Amino acid sequence: MNKNSSNIMALAPNTPNKRATVCIFGTGDFGRALGHKMIQSGYPVVFGSRSTQTSSLIPKEAEVLSHAEAAQKAAIIIIAIQRQHYDFLTPLAEILHGKVLVDVSNNLKTNQYPESNAEYLAQLVPGAKVVKAFNTVSAWALQSGTLDASRQVFVCGDDTEAKQMVMDIVRALGLTPLDQGSLLAAQEIENYPLQLFPMWKFPIFLSLGLTAFFFFYCLIRDIIYPFVYEKKDFSFFIAISIPNRICPIVALILLALVYLPGVLAAIIQLYRGTKYSRFPDWLDKWMLCRKQLGLVALAFAFLHVLYTLVMPIRYYVRWRIQSRILSQALQNKTDPFDNTNGWLSDSYLALGILGFFLFFLLGITSLPSVSNSVNWREFRFVQSKLGYLTLILCTAHTLVYGGKRFLSPSSYRWYLPNAYMLSLIVPCIVLVVKFVLIFPCLDKPLTRIRQGWERNPQYSE
Amino acid sequence: MNKNSSNIMALAPNTPNKRATVCIFGTGDFGRALGHKMIQSGYPVVFGSRSTQTSSLIPKEAEVLSHAEAAQKAAIIIIAIQRQHYDFLTPLAEILHGKVLVDVSNNLKTNQYPESNAEYLAQLVPGAKVVKAFNTVSAWALQSGTLDASRQVFVCGDDTEAKQMVMDIVRALGLTPLDQGSLLAAQEIENYPLQLFPMWKFPIFLSLGLTAFFFFYCLIRDIIYPFVYEKKDFSFFIAISIPNRICPIVALILLALVYLPGVLAAIIQLYRGTKYSRFPDWLDKWMLCRKQLGLVALAFAFLHVLYTLVMPIRYYVRWRIQSRILSQALQNKTDPFDNTNGWLSDSYLALGILGFFLFFLLGITSLPSVSNSVNWREFRFVQSKLGYLTLILCTAHTLVYGGKRFLSPSSYRWYLPNAYMLSLIVPCIVLVVKFVLIFPCLDKPLTRIRQGWERNPQYSE
Amino acid sequence: MNKNSSNIMALAPNTPNKRATVCIFGTGDFGRALGHKMIQSGYPVVFGSRSTQTSSLIPKEAEVLSHAEAAQKAAIIIIAIQRQHYDFLTPLAEILHGKVLVDVSNNLKTNQYPESNAEYLAQLVPGAKVVKAFNTVSAWALQSGTLDASRQVFVCGDDTEAKQMVMDIVRALGLTPLDQGSLLAAQEIENYPLQLFPMWKFPIFLSLGLTAFFFFYCLIRDIIYPFVYEKKDFSFFIAISIPNRICPIVALILLALVYLPGVLAAIIQLYRGTKYSRFPDWLDKWMLCRKQLGLVALAFAFLHVLYTLVMPIRYYVRWRIQSRILSQALQNKTDPFDNTNGWLSDSYLALGILGFFLFFLLGITSLPSVSNSVNWREFRFVQSKLGYLTLILCTAHTLVYGGKRFLSPSSYRWYLPNAYMLSLIVPCIVLVVKFVLIFPCLDKPLTRIRQGWERNPQYSE
Repeated sequence: MNKNSSNIMALAPNTPNKRATVCIFGTGDFGRALGHKMIQSGYPVVFGSRSTQTSSLIPKEAEVLSHAEAAQKAAIIIIAIQRQHYDFLTPLAEILHGKVLVDVSNNLKTNQYPESNAEYLAQLVPGAKVVKAFNTVSAWALQSGTLDASRQVFVCGDDTEAKQMVMDIVRALGLTPLDQGSLLAAQEIENYPLQLFPMWKFPIFLSLGLTAFFFFYCLIRDIIYPFVYEKKDFSFFIAISIPNRICPIVALILLALVYLPGVLAAIIQLYRGTKYSRFPDWLDKWMLCRKQLGLVALAFAFLHVLYTLVMPIRYYVRWRIQSRILSQALQNKTDPFDNTNGWLSDSYLALGILGFFLFFLLGITSLPSVSNSVNWREFRFVQSKLGYLTLILCTAHTLVYGGKRFLSPSSYRWYLPNAYMLSLIVPCIVLVVKFVLIFPCLDKPLTRIRQGWERNPQYSE
Repeated sequence: MNKNSSNIMALAPNTPNKRATVCIFGTGDFGRALGHKMIQSGYPVVFGSRSTQTSSLIPKEAEVLSHAEAAQKAAIIIIAIQRQHYDFLTPLAEILHGKVLVDVSNNLKTNQYPESNAEYLAQLVPGAKVVKAFNTVSAWALQSGTLDASRQVFVCGDDTEAKQMVMDIVRALGLTPLDQGSLLAAQEIENYPLQLFPMWKFPIFLSLGLTAFFFFYCLIRDIIYPFVYEKKDFSFFIAISIPNRICPIVALILLALVYLPGVLAAIIQLYRGTKYSRFPDWLDKWMLCRKQLGLVALAFAFLHVLYTLVMPIRYYVRWRIQSRILSQALQNKTDPFDNTNGWLSDSYLALGILGFFLFFLLGITSLPSVSNSVNWREFRFVQSKLGYLTLILCTAHTLVYGGKRFLSPSSYRWYLPNAYMLSLIVPCIVLVVKFVLIFPCLDKPLTRIRQGWERNPQYSE
Repeated sequence: MNKNSSNIMALAPNTPNKRATVCIFGTGDFGRALGHKMIQSGYPVVFGSRSTQTSSLIPKEAEVLSHAEAAQKAAIIIIAIQRQHYDFLTPLAEILHGKVLVDVSNNLKTNQYPESNAEYLAQLVPGAKVVKAFNTVSAWALQSGTLDASRQVFVCGDDTEAKQMVMDIVRALGLTPLDQGSLLAAQEIENYPLQLFPMWKFPIFLSLGLTAFFFFYCLIRDIIYPFVYEKKDFSFFIAISIPNRICPIVALILLALVYLPGVLAAIIQLYRGTKYSRFPDWLDKWMLCRKQLGLVALAFAFLHVLYTLVMPIRYYVRWRIQSRILSQALQNKTDPFDNTNGWLSDSYLALGILGFFLFFLLGITSLPSVSNSVNWREFRFVQSKLGYLTLILCTAHTLVYGGKRFLSPSSYRWYLPNAYMLSLIVPCIVLVVKFVLIFPCLDKPLTRIRQGWERNPQYSE
């Protein structure tokens, strides 16, 4: 090694002059797409296949050989074959000894087999170093180059070196490798692409449940009751009036449920006098899906805004205003302006607007690219301070909306209170408890507990 | 190498103790900005310049030498000079032999020269290893540190090692290198920063064409016709009424055009009995700009919402309501409430709100940071299931909007049907064909074809 | 090294077969969380602690030793201890000689100590290589794995090799290291997590100042004036009417202030005849917070839209319309339709809608993930061309809103013009100056100056 080249080597001392050959077993869609992408990125690719006759679909830069021949040409072998055909690898065990086998397979449903495909592969070819990777990438995305969905490639394996080799390839293909640890993680990685918004399930089912409950509640109060007692047909309320009652109610309850677990956690910590004992499982899970709860609440709030703004265009609303004016004109009298009503109407609208505005802001800051560009203090400020302000504004909006009607006996029908009153229970509890927790006599010990102080320390550093 | 240091080396065995010197030819804006950034990142920088007198603008940590002297100090030379001045490099060919030359140049228009600047450079200095890079980064962005636009640096070159060295520098500067392959890709890389939303061109021109067509269509029906027959001046309809007819129409047609190519592709695949023959070129292109089509449609839908919500504030609308009420007051009669109208009005509004809400959701999931955090199953679920639901809701919204007026002869003026009827043609076709394709007798073979089955297999694995 | 293994080595020649041990001093929250994450990523971890009795909270895969013993086991030692306890390291100086010490500490307020914690550490243990890192990551985020806020880890240090080792660990943990240069940057890095939206401070305080000013201005004109002269109580205007005057005014002024510095910079460059002299400091700072100014303006515009759309639902507005109709009905007369009013009302609404639509589009393109996926030409096109179009539309919206009332003496109360007139001053100045700058006699020299031409060159290349 002479003087001149050492300079180059200092900058990139370990870049091989040529990339090493990669072998791909299987010439199906995914194998071909991956091979194509690898050739583009400068890797020599050799396919291992049952029949070695090249098809027009296989990239012509790639060689097609028998499995055994192909395996000998490369240190890394990608097994782009379905799990049920893995047994053909058993006779090749000797050739595959010491090689890195990359399991890219997926199943059709979660936990289809007792062990993950990658672990099954490792059992079949005990001498090989099995790495799980690429299963989250789609053949179509590789081919078209439009990686709209995730660029993340989860990688796991027991051999660090083998894993590193695979992660280097992932990076070279322009994807982002994420080390998930040992091969034990393969089951989870294989289940990942079969998931359908797992974190969203609880918030969505909860909101659907609440929606259904309040739908029937409003149906009884607003359609069946007047039909029974006044013989009036308000069935068309189903289209807008009732949804516009349900949406704000569900939004407010869900928003309160975002902040309830934090309040519960504080109470538990105060009671236990330490932060070092685990929360109950349901509380942990609840805390992890707060973001999703909040976003579902925002969706309902957004619908509420649209339903409300559309009101003056509705035929029913126009007709009602018109008939009220006409009846006044016929009676020759005019309602005087009521200042209290002016205040109530304007302030409940203003509170709603400000609440929705802050809520929308919270939603924007939870976009991955936005939340990724703020520091923790900023993130906490937005999600906690602004979040509570939103909750206060939205609760006040609902309280002022009630206005004079609040708790007046005439608003009960069949002993059922107005639906919005029910929606106020959870947010009011959260706000009252949070208000109590702010008092110094509770806030000070809580802060100390959260900084690591323990009332009855069980271990010492 | 003793025992102790080997431990360190195991963690980072190949990090040079000091970064290698980088040479920059040219002291213009870009050369200086790049040099400045490199010095910040720990690279010793030496400038090669015609005149070696340092200016106050050149970072004072950098040396300024003649081209020949500077080139000898480094393994990597960045050519921050315009293409037309490249010929001064020819006499330096001997010194540049074996060096890595980084072409950072851009042109003023696409395909300005027959060969790319980087290939031209490689011809001028045949002994050097030419790498194309950094051309997408702006001098201003490097200086100010506010990399608001892309951090991506496209890199291409024939020598893998040289390319890797450049990519290491790119990474060290906090930018993201993207390997684009051999130097043949340089032309494309040089054209990239000259592009102005290439994927958006077709959707935008299409929507402008549709807008122009429906503008004149509505102009004739809604302004010229009443002017000719009733001598009424509705010219102010140009401001809001007509845009509010055009926007939903264009939005609905574009949304249907997002799903039409998928339906056509299914028909072609069913007819051919294989998925392994290429689609016609126009269909391929169409499929690749579906996202953009959808987003333009969403923009029109958003405008439609704003135009609609603003209606009750319009002087014209207020005046019309007022004069209708007054005429009823004078005639002493009251319109009774029409339940059918109540249903029609509320349900078309509700369908529109839900359709827009889902459409908005689709738009959010197409934000890069959001779509990057979902897996393929989730992405497909949103874009396909929710997408079709959106199309169904929006089509239903338009159908119910028509309501009783639908196909009634009085709504024809000069034999021209209402514009919204025209907008229903494409979405209805898409929905009907999609509905037919869902039938098991068609869905089953289609699914098998998409899994790789062929009716007349031409090759076997 | 035999033939077989060289193939593997070519692909990943420098990946250690096992990751090197990392030592963590301190078993507090952050130390434990970091240790846990490192173990997950395959690093053997050893804790150094005052008491070596393991607690249930320390990951059981990790050893707990005395500080001296633990330090000897690893090349990298993470000091997860608060600054005030650093002095215990002094006796360990000999053992720590040559080791990489990673300072992860944060302070409670910015610039709490004269020198940064990392520099203080470097003074205490002069023989060690101190690297600052991980201080922007929270213990909670490491534990829960939900890295919602930043994944960016700022790294600085005087020893390139040590820094590289730390950056490799950062990458292995799935975080993004950002090299910030020498240890001098530590102060800034330590202040970073204590910042609360530093770039937003000026825009937000400015907008709050403007809001306060226009609030009192409107209070005098719209509430106190009618109360004094007409004994009318319009106090409820505070809820919606006055906010809906303030929001568009502040939005328009802020939007104009986004484009004012660009115009000023052009004038300065034209006057000086060069782009190579620095702008005054206030102009530089102003230009760097244009994005934030624009987004605050967008927030005010968004509130204006909500306040406006809510108008027809307000009790006051409904009452006013109703009483006007009733008074007409009683007087038996009807207002004829005024075509000019129709035009004015519709066109100011249409201009507002289009202006808001473009403004919203600008806001979307400033989302990090969106602006990161466009090239510079596209970014400039959107932010400059579309930006000016937005400013023109919004200014025109305000001008047409004024309509006939513009400058009419009756709209002055106590010699105070309508508030919206004040809001037009800055945007009109910006647009007029920009219009003048477009003239070829000014545009040509400006373009040349921006390409590097100088009227009185002070240095030659």
